[in-house]
Amino acid sequence: MTTAPPLRGVISYPVTPFDPDTGALDLPGLRRLTGDLVAAGSHAVAPLGSAGESVYLTESEWDAVCETTLQTVAGRVPTLVGVAHFSTEGTVRRARVAARNGATAVMVLPLVYWQLTDAELERHFATVAAATDLPMVLYNNPGTSGVDLTPDRVVALARRIPQLTMVKESSGDVARFRALRERSDGALSVYNGNNPVALDAFRAGAAGWCTAAPCLVPAWCLDLYDAAVRGEAERAEAVFGPLLPLLEFLVGRGLPRAVKAGLGLLDRDAGPPRPPQLPLPAGETEQLRRLLGRLDASGRAPLR
Amino acid sequence: MTTAPPLRGVISYPVTPFDPDTGALDLPGLRRLTGDLVAAGSHAVAPLGSAGESVYLTESEWDAVCETTLQTVAGRVPTLVGVAHFSTEGTVRRARVAARNGATAVMVLPLVYWQLTDAELERHFATVAAATDLPMVLYNNPGTSGVDLTPDRVVALARRIPQLTMVKESSGDVARFRALRERSDGALSVYNGNNPVALDAFRAGAAGWCTAAPCLVPAWCLDLYDAAVRGEAERAEAVFGPLLPLLEFLVGRGLPRAVKAGLGLLDRDAGPPRPPQLPLPAGETEQLRRLLGRLDASGRAPLR
Amino acid sequence: MTTAPPLRGVISYPVTPFDPDTGALDLPGLRRLTGDLVAAGSHAVAPLGSAGESVYLTESEWDAVCETTLQTVAGRVPTLVGVAHFSTEGTVRRARVAARNGATAVMVLPLVYWQLTDAELERHFATVAAATDLPMVLYNNPGTSGVDLTPDRVVALARRIPQLTMVKESSGDVARFRALRERSDGALSVYNGNNPVALDAFRAGAAGWCTAAPCLVPAWCLDLYDAAVRGEAERAEAVFGPLLPLLEFLVGRGLPRAVKAGLGLLDRDAGPPRPPQLPLPAGETEQLRRLLGRLDASGRAPLR
Amino acid sequence: MTTAPPLRGVISYPVTPFDPDTGALDLPGLRRLTGDLVAAGSHAVAPLGSAGESVYLTESEWDAVCETTLQTVAGRVPTLVGVAHFSTEGTVRRARVAARNGATAVMVLPLVYWQLTDAELERHFATVAAATDLPMVLYNNPGTSGVDLTPDRVVALARRIPQLTMVKESSGDVARFRALRERSDGALSVYNGNNPVALDAFRAGAAGWCTAAPCLVPAWCLDLYDAAVRGEAERAEAVFGPLLPLLEFLVGRGLPRAVKAGLGLLDRDAGPPRPPQLPLPAGETEQLRRLLGRLDASGRAPLR
Repeated sequence: MTTAPPLRGVISYPVTPFDPDTGALDLPGLRRLTGDLVAAGSHAVAPLGSAGESVYLTESEWDAVCETTLQTVAGRVPTLVGVAHFSTEGTVRRARVAARNGATAVMVLPLVYWQLTDAELERHFATVAAATDLPMVLYNNPGTSGVDLTPDRVVALARRIPQLTMVKESSGDVARFRALRERSDGALSVYNGNNPVALDAFRAGAAGWCTAAPCLVPAWCLDLYDAAVRGEAERAEAVFGPLLPLLEFLVGRGLPRAVKAGLGLLDRDAGPPRPPQLPLPAGETEQLRRLLGRLDASGRAPLR
Repeated sequence: MTTAPPLRGVISYPVTPFDPDTGALDLPGLRRLTGDLVAAGSHAVAPLGSAGESVYLTESEWDAVCETTLQTVAGRVPTLVGVAHFSTEGTVRRARVAARNGATAVMVLPLVYWQLTDAELERHFATVAAATDLPMVLYNNPGTSGVDLTPDRVVALARRIPQLTMVKESSGDVARFRALRERSDGALSVYNGNNPVALDAFRAGAAGWCTAAPCLVPAWCLDLYDAAVRGEAERAEAVFGPLLPLLEFLVGRGLPRAVKAGLGLLDRDAGPPRPPQLPLPAGETEQLRRLLGRLDASGRAPLR
Repeated sequence: MTTAPPLRGVISYPVTPFDPDTGALDLPGLRRLTGDLVAAGSHAVAPLGSAGESVYLTESEWDAVCETTLQTVAGRVPTLVGVAHFSTEGTVRRARVAARNGATAVMVLPLVYWQLTDAELERHFATVAAATDLPMVLYNNPGTSGVDLTPDRVVALARRIPQLTMVKESSGDVARFRALRERSDGALSVYNGNNPVALDAFRAGAAGWCTAAPCLVPAWCLDLYDAAVRGEAERAEAVFGPLLPLLEFLVGRGLPRAVKAGLGLLDRDAGPPRPPQLPLPAGETEQLRRLLGRLDASGRAPLR
Repeated sequence: MTTAPPLRGVISYPVTPFDPDTGALDLPGLRRLTGDLVAAGSHAVAPLGSAGESVYLTESEWDAVCETTLQTVAGRVPTLVGVAHFSTEGTVRRARVAARNGATAVMVLPLVYWQLTDAELERHFATVAAATDLPMVLYNNPGTSGVDLTPDRVVALARRIPQLTMVKESSGDVARFRALRERSDGALSVYNGNNPVALDAFRAGAAGWCTAAPCLVPAWCLDLYDAAVRGEAERAEAVFGPLLPLLEFLVGRGLPRAVKAGLGLLDRDAGPPRPPQLPLPAGETEQLRRLLGRLDASGRAPLR
């Protein structure tokens, strides 16, 4: 439990497909998408993250997505389940569902309505960690959670919570990957959740890249990791340069909206995002078509 | 539906009592607290707002709090129910439960995970408004929701959504009360949700004050409104001066934690806030005791 | 020196006129504008504030503006001179020039390049205060200075710096006027520098209003103060309502640019703002003409 | 003028020495420090940047520092002179002084008091660029200037201002180095001014590193560049790891205060920073001694 987990590489985030007519969960669609991500070579699969529209699901929908994804992966690669909920009790419940379904690890983003004190945050993480036998990924994303867990705070938490062995860092501050590893004397594995700094993060020591981009262009993502991990700087640049405009587009439009628009363009429809989110407008979808087409035409890595 | 509602004055926000041992909803406690608020002279009661820990409740708990509060008020004063939920569907469901239980109006805070476009926000509000026959209060609180609905945006929304006849403004920017009334040609009623500017807001034209402080010191709150509405500037200052340190304390510590600590001090225990929130530490509770004691000793208005 | 100064009411900020052809200081123009402000009934005149483009002047220009303005006022009303400079030495030099020319008080905005520690800020203010016999106004404007001097910090400074008897607060947070007076037990006089909350600030206890609007519409500004100070709430609203759109326009476009455009429209040309600032574009000048025209046509108070 | 300049590598920023007794400029001290930086192997020298306390100098002091530094460098390496001033005219004057003294390029940080429009910023940069024959470095530092020049804005400016061929980017957002090069089709050379991301910036394509650290540990800085430019990832990490705590310390305390404290520890006293800045407190100086000692003891690169 306290040994470093084997999680590294491209950690793929499926979106959650909905039926275009009824808006209900589309579990066959989720199975297909998850299967595609594994078949494409993802090093891990992470359902119910930001891209998975977790906050827009009911509890029973959440459970169904968790179960379906983990059954589809069937242990072929590690799985990392986002269990964030406003209340500690709700987070614990989700962590247990993830454990029951065989997750490799749980990922906890603090959802903050009233600003939480340090003591409150620590008890929250500690309670969730103690609820299962799984290792825990602390997920820092100040932009969506409203709280910034700096490297010093994270390292202090990890000293007191043995299951906290991994950090997903989405602030975009590349200096934090190095800081987290050094200040924890290497005890923390660090993952990057900010797509536009994917290459810089690998170079700064990130063990993995948490990204929904493999839903659309898995080969490009895997190529980037391969080049980065082998230290082939020129090749890494040659992959990342053309890929970056797409990554910036996906992040700028909101992952669920943009990735679902892209799946539609690739004839792998996953339905609309759930309201209040709206599908990508036609003009932006056209722009996405051009971005995908340019990668396809480059001949470098085949779109899947 | 489109005529200005009779909502004005002190709009009291009950906290949601929990059993200190089990953490379960304490509905008898909620009935007592709600009854106290009405008996004290509140001009309206608003369950399931920020103070009510709405985001920490399950759906069935939410329904029970809504039903219990509205049954206890029993039409003696208007009721305003907070129905915020991340998804439009979840917000609509709650609005319908509020309507079924006889609410006077629904209040909608946009909970934002992915930044929403203007079109998405508008459709969200319009869909919720169309789901019931009730007038709708748009609730702006950039600090907790992550989105700032400026007067210009609110007025534009109100032009297209007839049920949107009221705004609760918690940004603390006093100039907005005037701006909202003037730019809507008086069509919008404006309510203040920022306790430390309560007096300034009344003077700038706020029709009401949304506050959890009446859980602890209702007579002071009602006195302030009375003085402000009669234009008795000196008396208003004499009430607000001593009251302000308490208001700042409540807001600074988080309303659920601080109000619940205060109820404990007044022998009207409402249990702890729900985790990850922790009860107020002993030192801060002592500080709160002094603040309450000072108001009590002033002899101006009896604590209830 | 430590008794509260008689500074209250409308504190008028002249812009600094430049020759439209050469860009050089236009001292006759400055004499005319200053004379107009006194003749119109301003309760005080404050050269070299933000509106006076202080940071765009050379040291000798600064001295000339200071001397010319104070000679023109000639003691008819109090004068308040902005002496901000990045270095303590530069600020001291300007404070001495102001004292030599007979200023009533100096006003100090901390210009911050490298973030300053509390000890550095305190020594800065203390050194400037000790450099002359004049009382000192601490000027808080987080938007332009990059540092926010909260009421608690200001009160702590005032306890250690006897000359610090006044505060100009431009954050727009109306609650601070009350907080500053109460936490200093009334020792601090507080002035509002945020135009759009002018009326709210008077009601919350501001002793004066620091504003460049009297360059264009002095009678309206004086009327507002008169109504506010007499507690005539309805009359104050009747003045402030029509005035507010103009105040918001002036602030939104930058005071030097907007006030100078307005002076041009009133045939009292003060030249262009100094580059990099550009004159107001034609479309916005047209908008300003309409705003001024509407006030003029209201018949309430004559434009001067 | 429009060909890419040969500026790359470690661009060293001297602090500006002052006499500890009188506070006056210490030009012999500046000559020694500048000479040390060149002798240590700096690839360029950049006087009058942030580290040089430019905003705390009088105009004649500014001129003296410019002249003295450039005479001392005497063309042995390129020089880059920071010419920022609030007014366009003041910036032009300084650019001309720099040109007259033989600078290789001028660097322009927009100092912003009133928010500037896009048109104002463009005219400012264009006017300064046209004032001399030198290439111009646009310096983006949102933290100290209050304006953020994003890659898109910079590239748009560079298209219209031929002398704008270089960008110093201090936002710390590593993704911008790549974005600036790609969106300008390689026409812009990009330099990093944020010390804690020095290694990441080189890897992301920064041509140089603008830093005051060579005043204290030049060999470490040069080593880092050498390892990075040769693509020796492991060696680069081995240099950067131990160096990073010192870089973070220098930035966190303010470069002038911290670098001057370090020079004192190394028996190369450059006097105090200019007030309102205060010398580093004893406790922090002790911390700095330990940080420098640790690098010295590592035996990797000799301190100078």
